[in-house]
Amino acid sequence: GAMSIEKLQRYREQMRTELDKVVDFWQKYSHDTQYGGFFTCIGKDGKIYDELKYVWLQGRQVWMYCRLYRTMERFNKPEILEAAKSGGAFLRRFARIPNSGSPWKCAFCLTRDGKALKVQRTIFSECFYVMAMDELARVTGDKDMQVKQPGALNTSTIKFCSQMMDQLVHWVRVDPSGLGKPQLSGDTPVCSMAVPMMLLCLVQQLTEARSGEEVDKYREVGGWCVKQILQHLQRGGTAILESVSSEGKELPGCEGRLQNPGHALEAGWFLLQYGLENGDQELQRTAVDKFMEIPFLTGWDKEHGGLLYFLDVDGYCPTQLEWSMKLWWPHCEALIAYLMAYSHTKEPALLERFSQVYDYTFSHFSDAENGEWFGYLTQQGKVTLDFKGGPFKGFFHVPRCLYMCEKILDSILNKQET
Amino acid sequence: GAMSIEKLQRYREQMRTELDKVVDFWQKYSHDTQYGGFFTCIGKDGKIYDELKYVWLQGRQVWMYCRLYRTMERFNKPEILEAAKSGGAFLRRFARIPNSGSPWKCAFCLTRDGKALKVQRTIFSECFYVMAMDELARVTGDKDMQVKQPGALNTSTIKFCSQMMDQLVHWVRVDPSGLGKPQLSGDTPVCSMAVPMMLLCLVQQLTEARSGEEVDKYREVGGWCVKQILQHLQRGGTAILESVSSEGKELPGCEGRLQNPGHALEAGWFLLQYGLENGDQELQRTAVDKFMEIPFLTGWDKEHGGLLYFLDVDGYCPTQLEWSMKLWWPHCEALIAYLMAYSHTKEPALLERFSQVYDYTFSHFSDAENGEWFGYLTQQGKVTLDFKGGPFKGFFHVPRCLYMCEKILDSILNKQET
Repeated sequence: GAMSIEKLQRYREQMRTELDKVVDFWQKYSHDTQYGGFFTCIGKDGKIYDELKYVWLQGRQVWMYCRLYRTMERFNKPEILEAAKSGGAFLRRFARIPNSGSPWKCAFCLTRDGKALKVQRTIFSECFYVMAMDELARVTGDKDMQVKQPGALNTSTIKFCSQMMDQLVHWVRVDPSGLGKPQLSGDTPVCSMAVPMMLLCLVQQLTEARSGEEVDKYREVGGWCVKQILQHLQRGGTAILESVSSEGKELPGCEGRLQNPGHALEAGWFLLQYGLENGDQELQRTAVDKFMEIPFLTGWDKEHGGLLYFLDVDGYCPTQLEWSMKLWWPHCEALIAYLMAYSHTKEPALLERFSQVYDYTFSHFSDAENGEWFGYLTQQGKVTLDFKGGPFKGFFHVPRCLYMCEKILDSILNKQET
Repeated sequence: GAMSIEKLQRYREQMRTELDKVVDFWQKYSHDTQYGGFFTCIGKDGKIYDELKYVWLQGRQVWMYCRLYRTMERFNKPEILEAAKSGGAFLRRFARIPNSGSPWKCAFCLTRDGKALKVQRTIFSECFYVMAMDELARVTGDKDMQVKQPGALNTSTIKFCSQMMDQLVHWVRVDPSGLGKPQLSGDTPVCSMAVPMMLLCLVQQLTEARSGEEVDKYREVGGWCVKQILQHLQRGGTAILESVSSEGKELPGCEGRLQNPGHALEAGWFLLQYGLENGDQELQRTAVDKFMEIPFLTGWDKEHGGLLYFLDVDGYCPTQLEWSMKLWWPHCEALIAYLMAYSHTKEPALLERFSQVYDYTFSHFSDAENGEWFGYLTQQGKVTLDFKGGPFKGFFHVPRCLYMCEKILDSILNKQET
């Protein structure tokens, strides 16, 4: 009805305005014009409080800039492209660690001038590196993307990403020993939901609007990722657990009982998107009824509002000190999930859910005074870490949420208006 | 005066009663009679919520039981000794990791039946292992302490500890590469205050009431540790920073600006004790005027009471999510520090400080209902993680604080009463 259209138009207007402000903030404060790449430790009013460069966040910012440049007309501006290319060049030059045993292993954290400072024994730095390179190649048409380091592979970005992806899949599905974790007798393999989610995200990136043999290879990986993610739905479909055994069974102790509502919601919209693209209606229903419903029922704080960060499925107290805090990114993922689900099902309850999360999110995280969002609140909703960017908060969850919500609202409204 | 003696007697009575309750709690709930060693993940009412065995906490509990058995008559009971010996046997059998490159490298975390699950690239598991073995040998007279594993060194505990200590000192002062951290070009050596504090604690343990060549070797290490700790007093003696460069200079960024008030207070009483034992009056003054005074001025929360966990010396927001929480252990360390300082200086301001911390601590952390202490409060002082034992909270900081405060109060009161 007219009321509902008006409401959706107001949401779209808000998403659009907020996205502009967020992009402005990072353009204004995050660019390192001396060494290239991006500062990510940025205080509430834009001041850089640490010069370290986190590889996850460099890759995500390159990806986000390129995506905005490529798919939203008002961001198709040379300064956005230049910033993305600067970030891409910084990554290509410094992110990978020579002599680490694999030509694809990346650092987790670099000094301002690109020296490796920390390396994680996981695949995430590498994944965000690939995401950035692929999206950048889509924008530049793969010009400027030849790898020019002495001794490095001189090949096109698509081939480069394909080789790196093969290595990532090998680490995940065949043999993780190259990641550097020692083998210990009590350390049975654990499947963390983050790994197949990340790989599925990469598959979506690398297959978008492409076809051919390469794409078939990725589709097989995508199918595997979906199966892996679905293994985290446990206890007869009543709980989503962050970690399960490699046989898809519940693990003992705190690790096995851990729930991460924001992560489950993010998996929800990944699965819904995949189900829509592949015409899999059962997967679409599981995404909405399980991965979007369960985290809300268990994770929404009925007393103070907002999504809790961690929960124990049996009601024990989690051992993570931050379990009861409200973080920005689960709220971003919830907004995407419920709006995407509403746009495809038109179930009013899902729009209601979106509204509820929206009201909490915009009244608690968005900073009207200096722009961008706070990231970390107490359970009671008070800002307790007041920076806009930090080691794990960059130009990613907030703009991706605003971008996707604006796009989804466009598509709903365009259909209704015509 | 009489008033003050009465007050000190009340404190001693409270410490004694509380220590009895805390020892009861761990005796009742933490002993694994099937596999040996101790459960450490224990809920608010004593229920085990995870069976993992953290090596730090196994070692600390063995040490604490033995210390109580050896030096406090009411704990000189066979069941305390038996529990300590069970923990010691579990550690000897399972803590060290064969084939890790060094016969002394220990796991961080074990399964209930002793399989290695995680290993840290630091020295702390190994240090608590040595502390436990030495104290246990003091109690058993080194009977039952022969290493009986097939292929393992068959030597006395004192010799065993000496060899392990040599390895620890080598890792810290000569070459850390055996700990397994990859060398990265941007990773310049950082001196964390935890390392010399831990080694100094071990030196105190291994030299207590002993003499000879071995002890001289340790004394040299002790002197080095004290110098290293003093390097963390920065900015013209106005700040204590958790991490400095290997030249004793301030480091850039968040890492360089980090303050950990509880840790500085713990260093304070380590230094005071060392200064007293070595008749070093200047060190005694630095311990009290700097390491005990500065953390209080910067770390005490004037609005809500209690000590904040982390602070940035330039007033930026720390990036640790838990920076504004109130943890039990900084308060334990503060109680020891101020009472020890008062007992030696008789400055009323230090007893006043002790009283202030005491009032906050006993009214917020101690659980009158089920015994033992909560460990984690919000900034506002509300319990937010309600377990009594967890991956980093075992039978150590609370009983060590109560034990030391009771001993110090005994010594003050005995002097005043005679």
